[in-house]
Amino acid sequence: MKILVSNDDGVYADGLWALVRELRDIATVIVVAPDRDQSGVGTSVTLRHPLRMTEIRSPLDGVIAYSVEGTPADSVILALKLVVKDGVDLVVSGINEGPNLGDDVFISGTVGAAVQGCFYGLPSIALSIAAFGSHHFNVAARLAKLLAGEIISRSLRHRILLNVNLPDLPCEELKGIEVTRLGERRYADRVEAGHDGKREYHWIMRGKSEWHLVPGTDVWALEENKISITPLFGNPDGASREFLESIAQAVFRKLVSSEKC
Amino acid sequence: MKILVSNDDGVYADGLWALVRELRDIATVIVVAPDRDQSGVGTSVTLRHPLRMTEIRSPLDGVIAYSVEGTPADSVILALKLVVKDGVDLVVSGINEGPNLGDDVFISGTVGAAVQGCFYGLPSIALSIAAFGSHHFNVAARLAKLLAGEIISRSLRHRILLNVNLPDLPCEELKGIEVTRLGERRYADRVEAGHDGKREYHWIMRGKSEWHLVPGTDVWALEENKISITPLFGNPDGASREFLESIAQAVFRKLVSSEKC
Amino acid sequence: MKILVSNDDGVYADGLWALVRELRDIATVIVVAPDRDQSGVGTSVTLRHPLRMTEIRSPLDGVIAYSVEGTPADSVILALKLVVKDGVDLVVSGINEGPNLGDDVFISGTVGAAVQGCFYGLPSIALSIAAFGSHHFNVAARLAKLLAGEIISRSLRHRILLNVNLPDLPCEELKGIEVTRLGERRYADRVEAGHDGKREYHWIMRGKSEWHLVPGTDVWALEENKISITPLFGNPDGASREFLESIAQAVFRKLVSSEKC
Amino acid sequence: MKILVSNDDGVYADGLWALVRELRDIATVIVVAPDRDQSGVGTSVTLRHPLRMTEIRSPLDGVIAYSVEGTPADSVILALKLVVKDGVDLVVSGINEGPNLGDDVFISGTVGAAVQGCFYGLPSIALSIAAFGSHHFNVAARLAKLLAGEIISRSLRHRILLNVNLPDLPCEELKGIEVTRLGERRYADRVEAGHDGKREYHWIMRGKSEWHLVPGTDVWALEENKISITPLFGNPDGASREFLESIAQAVFRKLVSSEKC
Repeated sequence: MKILVSNDDGVYADGLWALVRELRDIATVIVVAPDRDQSGVGTSVTLRHPLRMTEIRSPLDGVIAYSVEGTPADSVILALKLVVKDGVDLVVSGINEGPNLGDDVFISGTVGAAVQGCFYGLPSIALSIAAFGSHHFNVAARLAKLLAGEIISRSLRHRILLNVNLPDLPCEELKGIEVTRLGERRYADRVEAGHDGKREYHWIMRGKSEWHLVPGTDVWALEENKISITPLFGNPDGASREFLESIAQAVFRKLVSSEKC
Repeated sequence: MKILVSNDDGVYADGLWALVRELRDIATVIVVAPDRDQSGVGTSVTLRHPLRMTEIRSPLDGVIAYSVEGTPADSVILALKLVVKDGVDLVVSGINEGPNLGDDVFISGTVGAAVQGCFYGLPSIALSIAAFGSHHFNVAARLAKLLAGEIISRSLRHRILLNVNLPDLPCEELKGIEVTRLGERRYADRVEAGHDGKREYHWIMRGKSEWHLVPGTDVWALEENKISITPLFGNPDGASREFLESIAQAVFRKLVSSEKC
Repeated sequence: MKILVSNDDGVYADGLWALVRELRDIATVIVVAPDRDQSGVGTSVTLRHPLRMTEIRSPLDGVIAYSVEGTPADSVILALKLVVKDGVDLVVSGINEGPNLGDDVFISGTVGAAVQGCFYGLPSIALSIAAFGSHHFNVAARLAKLLAGEIISRSLRHRILLNVNLPDLPCEELKGIEVTRLGERRYADRVEAGHDGKREYHWIMRGKSEWHLVPGTDVWALEENKISITPLFGNPDGASREFLESIAQAVFRKLVSSEKC
Repeated sequence: MKILVSNDDGVYADGLWALVRELRDIATVIVVAPDRDQSGVGTSVTLRHPLRMTEIRSPLDGVIAYSVEGTPADSVILALKLVVKDGVDLVVSGINEGPNLGDDVFISGTVGAAVQGCFYGLPSIALSIAAFGSHHFNVAARLAKLLAGEIISRSLRHRILLNVNLPDLPCEELKGIEVTRLGERRYADRVEAGHDGKREYHWIMRGKSEWHLVPGTDVWALEENKISITPLFGNPDGASREFLESIAQAVFRKLVSSEKC
């Protein structure tokens, strides 16, 4: 099994390497990720400029890693076209610091990477944990490993994107897992004005979102201290809701019954 | 009535001003658009840097226009937060040179601008014509005016995004209008390698897409020389398919019965 | 006579067009300048990416103008290689809003454009006025016209760069003109720390400089309400100090004896 | 003794770490350098945007290293303002892959970093080796260590910038050292036109330079298989040519008499 890992926090981010450390138990892992934090770039693909890709000294033995001067989506495209030409079985993007829920998924670079994996016909997972500076990357990473194992063993080989969010909790405090749909939020962007000494500027700042806490949504699941799995762009035949439910519950049972929990 | 116009080809693009010229017949038009071509940036929002916005000398009297050093989505956010604080009735993004169909809508900056309008709770239209250097911007612009009129007169005031594509044809050769869903394509990206004299580079190039020509999709509609309207992120109650169908047909009848056609 | 005009405030800046308005009295003027404000980029040349150049609707009849997605130096290189292949007699960069004095000339984009002109073997002028939002662009522009006339009539055709700064004064309050050397300042950069909601950032802000007011320097000349002309990279044989002095005084006499003064 | 090291090839470049490996024998070394290759940016300082600085996992024990999303000049400013607030004794920029000679020094990012060190009143060295993929970084690094030692031991504490270039030769084939002035070249830029599928682009490519091989210039020295040291922006009193000559010869004697040569 071969897994391509990317993210939007940059190729040196702790979340990415926590993920890789688990995934390499079950697969050959190749890392291709942006050289810089790319928060907010969403699905952006660089078409107007060429890109640079450099192999980096990998923090983990046996894991090949490349740094791309571009977006998460660029990284996945270059990976699939240049680094793993014979293909991979799965694309995993993350672990993002901070949740990617509701409308926000459309500007998330973490999701943007997975969208490209999906467009190339691969099962893809975007993985986020609902906190900055989280101490529970290991929970998210083990979940990813279990989910990857299920996806492969059940031959879910076509294009599907699962957007996974975890509350920032130790394993034993998780209350369950839900297959959800995207929530809706009331936008809380602020635009701050400032001056650089020569000219005025404006800076878009993400404020705290006010969410409509509708049951069945990703936002609601996290509020309930549950893991949320939202299928996006999914093939409805191959990955029906029931099928996903059964995968989700199997994964959760394994996660909480593990001795590491 | 107030309409915000943006695009991803840049604030001086011909397609944008062809659109504005028609829309100002029925509304006050405010233009806020990127200062540079932003093809491919999709939904990208600039969160890591401040933005600059400058009022430009508008090519059309009575139309206020701003240039933003940022993405289409940035432009819409700054517009709604700073320029038209009392809101607008509609956001229209375009007219894009080149189609935005199927999977491609997710990396389209034209659609990215409309997505932000939609997230701010506004009816939004992304408008593209399936050719570069088109001679039929006026057909697309008149269609936008008619569609805007219907949306407002029928009080379609909530969040909905209509992705509209026109074949590059004179009005009288259009064969109809279809409310469609997104098509799927087999990706045709190429990555070209090159050398700048010092280091290697790689450039993602969009190749010609091979589409699955499934009836009911946007790709299929254009192949049939019809206009395609694809609802994205729509509120299913307020803008059901039947309702959209009736709007679409009404708009098309007016378009082709006009003496300008 | 042909003059290439560029700047670092962007192709639509008022200072540039005030300059062009005067220069076209004596020469064919071609404008090639950055599409965005490029303050601080100094001599930067874009080697790692391709550039885009677009002809813009010129605000002045008969003046061809191009916008470049790049630096001032890029603009001059593209101009000389692509737009005016048969060469120009002179490169003028400006009128910059704000002085370019002493050490600062090395990070000035205004000077950076002129440096490239000089490297291509052409006499080049960088022109700045010591204020933001100045009302005296016309004085600087007339000075440039007179200086250009002298340079051409005296056949100063080799590589020389004159860095010209004017105090922000009406013509009749100017106390003279000086051929100077670069002053030295005590650096007054501040670095402001901030937070974008996700991560810390640092912003280099130019503070008010404290200058060593040594007679003979550009800084001192302006303090005396005089125009400063500093030769940089000059050919010492063709443009000796005495020669420059005679040009400078001739230009100043014409400037203040004009009826427009 | 404290030395700040930067470069323009990026914080992970081999040339930088070859340099650090030698310098830490004689000083505490702090590395602050761009996160990406910044060739061609010259003296550029980022004033219109904030910067990000991150501590990286240093390849050498005991050496603190920071990565800056900005230019070489930005890196030096952030270093002096935020990382080593109590100052350093010397700034060294390099080892650059490829020569920085003549006019080219003004667009060199390697030199740009040293220029900022100099503007902050510090003795600064820009160090380049005249080849890509050189095998003789160790020679350049030992030279830098010897030069740094001389500068400090002779109390050369004021602002001076030495631009040092080495031929790509093993130590024993070096023919000497020269204190030089900048050479002049006939520019050999090419501008290549291309098309990205949507629009035309132009790319500035550095061609092979044709130099005027005038004795006493940096270009000439390298042609003679000698090391070139060019004082730039120097204080003429404190660092007269004779003084520099004596330093240069002393350094060269030590270099070639070392058993490592």
